[in-house]
Amino acid sequence: MDNKWYETSGKNGEVVISTRIRLARNLEQYPFPIRCNAQVKQEIAEKVKDAVLNSNSVIAPHFSCIDIDNIDAGEKVSLVERHLVSPEFISEKSQKYLLLLDDESVSIMINEEDHIRLQVMREGFDLDKAYEQASRIDTLLDERLNFAFSDTLGYLTQCPTNLGTGMRASVMLHLPALQSTKAMRKISENLSKIGLTIRGSYGEGSEPTAAMYQLSNQISLGISEKTAIDNLKNITKQIIAQELKTREALAKQLSVQDTIYRSEGILKSARLIACDEALKHLSNLRMGITTGLINNISLDTINRLMVEIQPAMLIRQNGKPLSSQERDAVRAELLRNNFQN
Amino acid sequence: MDNKWYETSGKNGEVVISTRIRLARNLEQYPFPIRCNAQVKQEIAEKVKDAVLNSNSVIAPHFSCIDIDNIDAGEKVSLVERHLVSPEFISEKSQKYLLLLDDESVSIMINEEDHIRLQVMREGFDLDKAYEQASRIDTLLDERLNFAFSDTLGYLTQCPTNLGTGMRASVMLHLPALQSTKAMRKISENLSKIGLTIRGSYGEGSEPTAAMYQLSNQISLGISEKTAIDNLKNITKQIIAQELKTREALAKQLSVQDTIYRSEGILKSARLIACDEALKHLSNLRMGITTGLINNISLDTINRLMVEIQPAMLIRQNGKPLSSQERDAVRAELLRNNFQN
Repeated sequence: MDNKWYETSGKNGEVVISTRIRLARNLEQYPFPIRCNAQVKQEIAEKVKDAVLNSNSVIAPHFSCIDIDNIDAGEKVSLVERHLVSPEFISEKSQKYLLLLDDESVSIMINEEDHIRLQVMREGFDLDKAYEQASRIDTLLDERLNFAFSDTLGYLTQCPTNLGTGMRASVMLHLPALQSTKAMRKISENLSKIGLTIRGSYGEGSEPTAAMYQLSNQISLGISEKTAIDNLKNITKQIIAQELKTREALAKQLSVQDTIYRSEGILKSARLIACDEALKHLSNLRMGITTGLINNISLDTINRLMVEIQPAMLIRQNGKPLSSQERDAVRAELLRNNFQN
Repeated sequence: MDNKWYETSGKNGEVVISTRIRLARNLEQYPFPIRCNAQVKQEIAEKVKDAVLNSNSVIAPHFSCIDIDNIDAGEKVSLVERHLVSPEFISEKSQKYLLLLDDESVSIMINEEDHIRLQVMREGFDLDKAYEQASRIDTLLDERLNFAFSDTLGYLTQCPTNLGTGMRASVMLHLPALQSTKAMRKISENLSKIGLTIRGSYGEGSEPTAAMYQLSNQISLGISEKTAIDNLKNITKQIIAQELKTREALAKQLSVQDTIYRSEGILKSARLIACDEALKHLSNLRMGITTGLINNISLDTINRLMVEIQPAMLIRQNGKPLSSQERDAVRAELLRNNFQN
């Protein structure tokens, strides 16, 4: 397998797992997907695929096209686990395609809520580079497709909350210290006043697993991409500083050290482990690494494992179906192999 | 410190931690302790001390005398933790003394329920040797003291349940497999029909900690010492066989292996650990060692630690008082030092 973007940690990797830019675009001459029949959606898909795969861009040959309607359930779920598609995208069959770059850093969902959902992901805290790359691909698409655009409103999208720039910029943050000191609620309230939102990873409504939070801009109308990104960037810097300071204080507590070292002990020795439990321990280990309590494990390893231990990823790697207990055994083995010596 | 009897494991050590013989004796010319005033009890104590310490026996110089009324609370509790005295023995001041052999295998409580409670403990399954040694010391005492004895009843004791031989023979058994398969209740019911009793360690009424059970004879009247011991011996052999067979079956289960290896991981990594939790993991480790799942740890280490991690033992070893959290930290450190590498 090629190396994937999520296998390395990036800038401010102690807190920021990844940066994501998502652009929503629609083709001018067609209704939004919800109002298209299968034939029209297929027509849209062909146009978008052609615009990417047959473009003169140097990255065009590095894209592959996944026909979502014709892959098995496990493969679908593993796309969600890698944050490449939304859970909604795999929930029903209807001319859905995913254009995916080799290293999985760029994914283009076709016929999701909008005709096009372009997503760029990068390791660590890297909003500028992520936006730059998203823009480049946006321009590439724009050259060959007519985007629905209004001079007064900006890009037109099915949901009004995406109108304007059509952009969501977000960072995935690991906030174990702020979470454990119950600071998240207050932070969340303050953020909403300035047009940002923070929520547990894996999209809206979910509970924070392993202290992972997605911080994103909420406003796309009447604001430039640059302003939105700068806003997110400044707040992220403040949260990073707050998290690191809190971690430093917590790491001096024997009870916190106990929790971290126990997590290491369990990951090195368990023979059966459920995904949620493993994520909790990996989260503790991450905090241990960044506070200097644990030295012989890299953040890269943790980041990679947080993806690889997901159920569908395990099945994908295993090459054949696994029962729940078999999965827990394979997961425990994978973790032991990564941590023992 | 000298080596103590509990620092090694003995015959059938995979199941039998220790063997104990206890003889209750009283001096003919005095009432039972409960009916003696302080002065009379002191007189009794002097006679018993003299009989042991000033005897011509080769072991006499290896006994020391502890004045229970004049040691601190921690030292008292640590005597209970080492199973050298009963919890009742340390609960009130009243001319109580403990004569203790260097290696702590022989202890003589003076002015407990009876004037004399002689106890011999040995590692592993060793009823004959333990009884032989108890008899030898009993004879030694008998030469210099007049025991209350009735030709029809045998030795006279305060509580009628000890009348006759005045003997309790017992084995401390580690029964994690039988416990986990819920077999103990049925076993207990059957044993009571044949004059034996099984209960959690640390005396009557307590719950089994770390799957430790004390199996003992209940009948002392109208039965010879030899018959009582043979009876206990046969039943113990059956329980050992049953426990080992059940362990073998359980050890094939991945969930059991998981529990055992996790316990090892936690003992190697915790920074804070309460006594009960540590005992639970040590019990799991013991089962892991005897089923071949864990190879680099000896039963001797486990047996020794099960005593050393007790609260008062930790404080005694530490030489100064410890708060509850400090104790948990010292205990975790002691365990890590014993298990790492």
